[in-house]
Amino acid sequence: MKPFILITNDDGINSKGISVLTRLMLQIGDVTVVAPDSVRSAQSNAITISQPITFQTVEESDSLKRYQCSGTPTDCVKLALGTICTRKPDLLVSGINHGSNAAIAVIYSGTMGAVLEGCENGIPSIGFSISDYEADADFSRFEKYIVEISRKIIESPLPYGYCLNVNCPKGEIKGVKICRQCKGLWVKEFEKRTHPFGTPYYWMTGEFENLEPQSSDTDEWALNNGYISIVPTKIDMTAYEICEEVEKLMC
Amino acid sequence: MKPFILITNDDGINSKGISVLTRLMLQIGDVTVVAPDSVRSAQSNAITISQPITFQTVEESDSLKRYQCSGTPTDCVKLALGTICTRKPDLLVSGINHGSNAAIAVIYSGTMGAVLEGCENGIPSIGFSISDYEADADFSRFEKYIVEISRKIIESPLPYGYCLNVNCPKGEIKGVKICRQCKGLWVKEFEKRTHPFGTPYYWMTGEFENLEPQSSDTDEWALNNGYISIVPTKIDMTAYEICEEVEKLMC
Repeated sequence: MKPFILITNDDGINSKGISVLTRLMLQIGDVTVVAPDSVRSAQSNAITISQPITFQTVEESDSLKRYQCSGTPTDCVKLALGTICTRKPDLLVSGINHGSNAAIAVIYSGTMGAVLEGCENGIPSIGFSISDYEADADFSRFEKYIVEISRKIIESPLPYGYCLNVNCPKGEIKGVKICRQCKGLWVKEFEKRTHPFGTPYYWMTGEFENLEPQSSDTDEWALNNGYISIVPTKIDMTAYEICEEVEKLMC
Repeated sequence: MKPFILITNDDGINSKGISVLTRLMLQIGDVTVVAPDSVRSAQSNAITISQPITFQTVEESDSLKRYQCSGTPTDCVKLALGTICTRKPDLLVSGINHGSNAAIAVIYSGTMGAVLEGCENGIPSIGFSISDYEADADFSRFEKYIVEISRKIIESPLPYGYCLNVNCPKGEIKGVKICRQCKGLWVKEFEKRTHPFGTPYYWMTGEFENLEPQSSDTDEWALNNGYISIVPTKIDMTAYEICEEVEKLMC
């Protein structure tokens, strides 16, 4: 039986990134797409509990089924696994996100939220993103890597609780690097404006500040130096390395 | 100078939990509250980028300032640090959440989203939650622990990138346990209903399935056995322990 692949994203079902990813995954197996009906960027692992969720069929053929969902990327994965899919996926891929999800972006990203959700459900899960926010971004240089990485993870699934955050640099690709999540934060995040009636409002914007620009083992370094970054990522956020210190302080 | 404490939550500025937390923090220092204007549960680290964010003053005295914000819990922290606060907080506390945020809930929780945001910004940050979803939950048994844990973290801040996820059990408290995040997932998550016009819709619901009910070092075990759970938590989601394995597979 062909591998069964579930696809989602946070840029919405009509984005270029998810159509490229769908075409690539059809080279590997049967595909079901369950994606937001419009843009749901920066939705992290948000879920919809205060209103109902709906979905509509966009396309249904033997090897490709596509559904658009009213909810967040994490809602899409939950709905796909709980309601739409008739068997457990061999792989979940999310993206290709228009924009990098390296460094601390992993905690805000709807793309990676969906990946963590797949991971929690015991499905080999990968997020693919490219350092290009344009709607018509050129994904072609990334394509063979996406297929190769996906095939390898289907053949050799990671242990429970682990997934991959894969980002593609701007320009020519020099190779692939296994990295750690770069330390950094967003600064200068608000632009204040004034409503015609005189009240202030704020647009979120900002710049990423890399707290360790010299370290060559981070995802930011890899992307800035022409490498695809692969960060092995986990859903267990326990800080084992400081448990003893906290124990001494608290008990 | 008195410690300066920033408070937020995901149940909204009018919840009982945040009013109790505000009263407790006023025993320790000067307090600024920046909280959502209504319920924003399960918003994870979602941020608002497609529409502007606004806030209004609710109360402004020497030791207590309160503002309600149109955004998510993470928006509240970003807006507080970028726009509202005139100095860097010595502590950020989020909650007291009406409902447990143990185990995998950490990735969905708006309460913990705000904590991770404070942590990323180098502020000692703690999430407080109680295993009781009632709007009029009784927080009294938890109060002395909240004050004690908060004082300790102000005196001995954790290193950059680390924060605490603190949950209170139902009923009598036997003590405090330092724990790890329990492995588990949500199952049976959807209830299907039919719109008066005949189309289906889905409510998210579900049950938590503990994948390691026998392990006594998890937060779920602590809560089920009468202990306050403290999980040292980190914003670096890199799975260092499988980097070598992924390197062999990919390179």
